[in-house]
Formats: sequence, C-alpha cells, structure tokens
Amino acid sequence: MSNDAAKIKEEILSMGVKAKAAKYELAKLSTEEKNKVLLEVAEELVNSKDEILKENAKDIKKGEDEGMHPGLVDRLRLTEARIEDIALGIRQVAELPDPIGEVLDKSVLENGLKINKVSVPLGVIGIIYESRPNVTADAFSLTFKAGNVVILKGGSDAICSNLAITAVIRRVIERNGYNPDFIQLIPFTDRSAVNELLSLRGYVDVIIPRGSARLIRTVCDNSKIPVIETGSGNCHIYIDEFADIKKAIPIIINAKTQRIGVCNAAESLVVHEKIRDAFLPELSKAMKENKVELRADSLSIDLLPESKPATEEDFGTEYLDYILSVKTVKNVDEAISHINKYNTGHSESIITENKENAEKFLNGVDAACVYVNASTRFTDGFQFGLGAEIGISTQKLHARGPMGLKELCSYKYQIIGDGQVRP
Amino acid sequence: MSNDAAKIKEEILSMGVKAKAAKYELAKLSTEEKNKVLLEVAEELVNSKDEILKENAKDIKKGEDEGMHPGLVDRLRLTEARIEDIALGIRQVAELPDPIGEVLDKSVLENGLKINKVSVPLGVIGIIYESRPNVTADAFSLTFKAGNVVILKGGSDAICSNLAITAVIRRVIERNGYNPDFIQLIPFTDRSAVNELLSLRGYVDVIIPRGSARLIRTVCDNSKIPVIETGSGNCHIYIDEFADIKKAIPIIINAKTQRIGVCNAAESLVVHEKIRDAFLPELSKAMKENKVELRADSLSIDLLPESKPATEEDFGTEYLDYILSVKTVKNVDEAISHINKYNTGHSESIITENKENAEKFLNGVDAACVYVNASTRFTDGFQFGLGAEIGISTQKLHARGPMGLKELCSYKYQIIGDGQVRP
Repeated sequence: MSNDAAKIKEEILSMGVKAKAAKYELAKLSTEEKNKVLLEVAEELVNSKDEILKENAKDIKKGEDEGMHPGLVDRLRLTEARIEDIALGIRQVAELPDPIGEVLDKSVLENGLKINKVSVPLGVIGIIYESRPNVTADAFSLTFKAGNVVILKGGSDAICSNLAITAVIRRVIERNGYNPDFIQLIPFTDRSAVNELLSLRGYVDVIIPRGSARLIRTVCDNSKIPVIETGSGNCHIYIDEFADIKKAIPIIINAKTQRIGVCNAAESLVVHEKIRDAFLPELSKAMKENKVELRADSLSIDLLPESKPATEEDFGTEYLDYILSVKTVKNVDEAISHINKYNTGHSESIITENKENAEKFLNGVDAACVYVNASTRFTDGFQFGLGAEIGISTQKLHARGPMGLKELCSYKYQIIGDGQVRP
Repeated sequence: MSNDAAKIKEEILSMGVKAKAAKYELAKLSTEEKNKVLLEVAEELVNSKDEILKENAKDIKKGEDEGMHPGLVDRLRLTEARIEDIALGIRQVAELPDPIGEVLDKSVLENGLKINKVSVPLGVIGIIYESRPNVTADAFSLTFKAGNVVILKGGSDAICSNLAITAVIRRVIERNGYNPDFIQLIPFTDRSAVNELLSLRGYVDVIIPRGSARLIRTVCDNSKIPVIETGSGNCHIYIDEFADIKKAIPIIINAKTQRIGVCNAAESLVVHEKIRDAFLPELSKAMKENKVELRADSLSIDLLPESKPATEEDFGTEYLDYILSVKTVKNVDEAISHINKYNTGHSESIITENKENAEKFLNGVDAACVYVNASTRFTDGFQFGLGAEIGISTQKLHARGPMGLKELCSYKYQIIGDGQVRP
C-alpha cells in the first residue's frame, strides 16, 4: 500500500466516524429546523454563484484540455440558470411532507404491550455518482430531509464544482448551529476512494450508486454495505395481437426518442406475429422520420427494409441511442418470457385492447413498473407524484422503482410496557 | 480449480437457472393452491417420519462419532414429536393471510394514468443456515406462502436430514402438478458451495443467512446478491435514575436467563449512577440466585462483590451464556451513546418511570426494537403477532426486526393508460 492509499484509507475511515456521530444529531432535528436549513441552502447557492461558477470553470477547462466529449462537457457545465434550477429543486424538497416519525402500524398485545412501528432515517447514506455536479445538491436535499447524513463520492471530472457546492451547504448548516458533517464530500479522485467508502461497514448504513451500468456493477460487486441498485433500463414495448396501432406508434416514438440517454427510454420492441404485417410498415415509416435505426429479427426484417439484422446481443443492450431492436413472438406468454430473459427490471409496456393479455402482462413481467398502453418514460419520481427522486431502484429489496423521501427511510419498533416479561 | 469445485460451480449455477424458471410458475399460484400444498406437506412429513428419522440417525451418528458437543447433537436430533411440531408450524403458515397481490397504494395522475403499487414475491430467496434440520421445512413454508422459490444451503452436519425433508416436500409439490424446483437443497457440504450460491446474481434475488455472527459476516462480505442480515443481538437493559427496581429485577432475570442462547437475550446492563446504591445489591442477589456471572465496570464493582472486572471487550460481546456485563453512566444521554456504540441494532430496553427519559431512549437508541419497562425477549415474530418469522433483521434496509410473510415480499407498480405519452 502506498502512502497515498494509506492516507485515503485513514481519511475516509475518519469521515465514516464523523458521519456516524453526526447521524444522531441530525435525527433529532424537527421538520421546521430541517426546512429552514434547506431554504437557506437554496438561497446561499444562488448568492454564491460566482464562487461556484469559478470552480466549475476549472473542471470545464480540465475536461476540454483532456479532450472530453462535448456532450459530457455540457453535463459538467453549471450556469446561473442551472444554479437557480438547483435552488428551485431544494425549495421543492423543503415543501414535501417530512417522512420521519410517521406511525406506520400499531398494535396492543394481550399482555398490554403497546407496539408502534415508526419511520426513522436510514442513518448514513453513501452516494456514488458520476459527472453532473447538480447531483451533489439534489442528493443532499433529499437525504437530509429524510434525516440522513450523507457521504458523497462524485465523479473526479466534477471535483472542483462538487467541493464548492458542498462548502456552501456546510457553511449554512454550521451557521444554523449544527454539525457540518451532515454532508461530507470525499475529496479524493483516486479510484481506491470508492473501495474505501464501500468498506465502511458499521459507519455507513446504505450505499446508493447513480450512473452507468458499469459503475453500479462495480459497487454491487465490492460493497460490504447494503446497496440499493439503481439505474440501468433495458425497457421493452410489446405490441400485442390486439394492439391499437394508432396508440402504439406515438407511444413508441415518445418512449424511444423523447430523451434517448435516460434509463426509462425504450430499447426494444416485441411484436406479436399476427399484427406484424399491419404494424411493421407503420413502424418503419415512423422510425425513419425520427431517425431511429431498427435491428430486426429474421421474422420482421423483410417488413423493415432499412433495418439491420438483430443479434442475440442486441436484445440485451441498453443502447441509450437512436436504435431500437425488434423481436417477433407467437403470443403474450412468449413476449413475457423474452422480456423476463433480457430486461433489467426497470419499465416494460404492453400495447393492447385485450384485458386478459394486459392482465397476464402486468402480472407476468418481472419489473419495477409495468405499463398498459402508456410510454415507459413515465417511470420517474416527479411523474409518480413522489415530489422528487434519488433514483430508480431496479432491485427488489427495500425499494423498487422511483425512490422518493419515504424510500430513504427505515423503521423501528417502539414497545411500551409496564413490567412485562416473556412467559 | 479442482474437478470437484468445477462440478459444484456448474451444478449450483444449474440450480439457479432452474430456480429462476420456477419462480414465474410459482408466482401464478393462487392462495388456495399454495395452502393445499402446505397442508399436504405437513401431512406427508408426519407420514414419512420413518424415512426422515432414518436419515437423521445417520447425521446423529456422524456427529457423535466426530465428538460433537451434546448440545449440538440435541439441536440436530429429530423425533416423532419434533416432526409433528414442524408439521404444526406449516399448518399455521397455511392459515396466515396471503401477503401477495395486496394493493399497497394507488393513485390516478392528472393525465388519467392509474398507478397501483402491488405486493409481489421477492422471487428466488437463498437461505443459508446451520445445524437445525427443522429450518429446512420452516424456511420453505414461509418463503413458499409468500410466492418465493427457495434455494437452501443447510449445515453439513444435517445434510442427510435436510435432503430427506426436501425430498418429501418436492414429492408433494410434484404430485400437485407443479415444478418441484420451488424448493432445492444444495447437496454439497464443501465450503465452496456457499460462495457459489452467493455468486448467483441474476438468478437469486435475495440471500438470508441464519446462524452465528460469523456465518452472517461471511455471507455479507462475500455476497454479490442483496443480503438481509439477521441475528446477532448484543442487547442492553438501561436502569434509569427513575427506574422502579421492583420491575427491573424480574425483567433482567427474564431477559438474561429465560433462554440464554437466543439473539434477544440481554447481554449487558447500563446503570444510572444515582440508582447504583439502591439497585446493585438487589441485582447482585438476583443474579447469584440465577447463577449469572457479573462483569462490572470500576464504578459498580464495589457493590457487586462476586463480579469480575469488565473489559472493553465485554461491552461488545454477545455472551449467549450466564454472563452479564454492567456499565455505569451519568445520565440517559450517556446510556444512549454507550448502547449505540456497542449494540448490534437488535433490542434494547429502558427501565424508568420518567416519561421524558423514556421518550429520549425510544428516539435516540438505534435498534430494531426499543422497549420501555419490558423484557427484550419479546422481539419475536410470534410475539409481535406476525404469525411466524424467518428471522430478526438487524439491518435497516428492506426489513427491520422480526420478519414475517410481508417482509418476504417486494412490490411492483402496475400502470394502466390509454395511450399516454410524456410531454
């Protein structure tokens, strides 16, 4: 172990110790106290825009100097308007109901013991993310409102911007008389820093990775701490034998092209063989107009003149691009099996006017969000009315689908007795 | 890799593939179909007692030949009465309400999209446990009732008993026309089998380890699959300045001695310095009568004549024995800090007649179950009215405290539209 690695290990352990101490302080804050901090953070971020933009410019320059792709440079870039958007997001979180202290269930046993199941913070949450510096503020506002201390590990590309935003937030917390360690940002860009964070068992209660499939996989494989897996979406739309093609085409265009780089975008169509002849020419036309390349299986390729042949690999690929694969099936059961084989448990939709097939699909497809006659693009915390989201969970443990404030909570049992012992 | 290890890897992967296929079949079973299987399994286990006892005798003989501790041999032993107890437990699970298909939440968006949040099975659950063969049947009945396929890895000591019980269950499932792979037992006793199971990402949805702290730690450290941590309990009782000593003593006797080897037994007392003089002589007498050894800190040892000095290590030890440590504190805040430093997040109790201190303790102690004036021994699925339990979760993700049928479920969103696209 080099000296640097030893130093990183030591510092990150020390951050874990500080976070654990801070979580007991934060858990005591009232809703009003938390909201006051959030509103002041929003204001202070706007007031500190010069300081933040100056640091952001360093990240931008470094990215450009190193030949970063212009799309990535754009994700990295902050502007006055983007800082105002960040502040608006924080103000919205302040307005959401406090998820903590809710009595989720209660009972009184025959022996008189009163049992209350009460929502509590998860404790210390570690969030590992990539380029966009706005995540620093978003992640803080949601975890903080749910009473959690956060340790952030942002992308190394955005290190100066993230440090500047974190400094502003810590300043506001401290000014309010609280422990600034309610938020800590790991200042190291070395890769070993992620592994050290993933080893903070006993200090960090939950890890949430946000970003590419590769990042998420690395985190799941290496974490000694429970992880909530988010993100990757290989989403399908199944065009049933009984689909209304007039509904299908706009839904496909929306799900594929409204925003191509997001996890709830559609990546693959599954088509019932009986609707193939009527549907595929319409699809071909619509996709051509929208500049979407089709990759078709052997049973559909003849009706899709400008498509390429789909390989097995295509069906498992989240393109995040203007590409869509097409698979033909004999019936809804085969469609469900195909989707359950290749999907990532995110969002899947059936287009049908047949209730029985809709029901089969809703129950049979194994995914966080299963749709009938609607675009997969609705899988989103804001759209679902959660107010905001920290990500889309694609695992089944703890939370599934859009994760809002409630999903950032745990619960405890509080049991009130009067001397009861177990017989 | 030796041939054996390669064979184990291949076979366990094949079990994962079979389990994944079976989970879609099992998810379709109605409540009545599941209950019919459970009742027939209960009957068939009793009818097959000769076959099961014969296989159990092999495990017992091997254990005795290898000099196994008599206590462990007893845990391993099945009898006609124990098989009837197992059957009774399964019949009780059949009577519990089905946790699947419940609408947990619903809403209609402005655009007309109807969103239902519905409980669904977790999918495939891997359960890793130690000696007791009754766990084989218990784990099956709970996971099956909640619509989950199970892959079991029992202790190698009990391999013949576990295989016999599993064979009976599979026979009943098959006789009912279903896929016997609803339950599979890993037939290998080699240690590598556990690691292969923990690597079945994409096939197994959740791992639940049941057993010693060491087993649980190994599973958490090595799993590529989400884990629900269960089990170890370093439980405290805090005797507040305002405690009623007449309530405290019976609670301590109950929590320490009613069953010493269980996770909800008390392991440590925390004593307010103002009640020390009145309380400790009573404690000393009661513990002497119950043959409990005390390990006392420097501020309590003079009042506990037969105690040994407590070390730092004592405060972090789950004795599971007739031993209790004693720590003196200045106030309830110090008691809470001490407990949060040394506990395992299981069960903690305050003895006090003071409402404010009770409230502080209930909110400040970070544990699944926090008690006022009651024994920690109540932390149990049956006691809490859950009907049965698969274990006590000591983590904050997904489930905390006693885990019954509901905690063996996930949920999905079902969204019904009529052509909606995202603007």
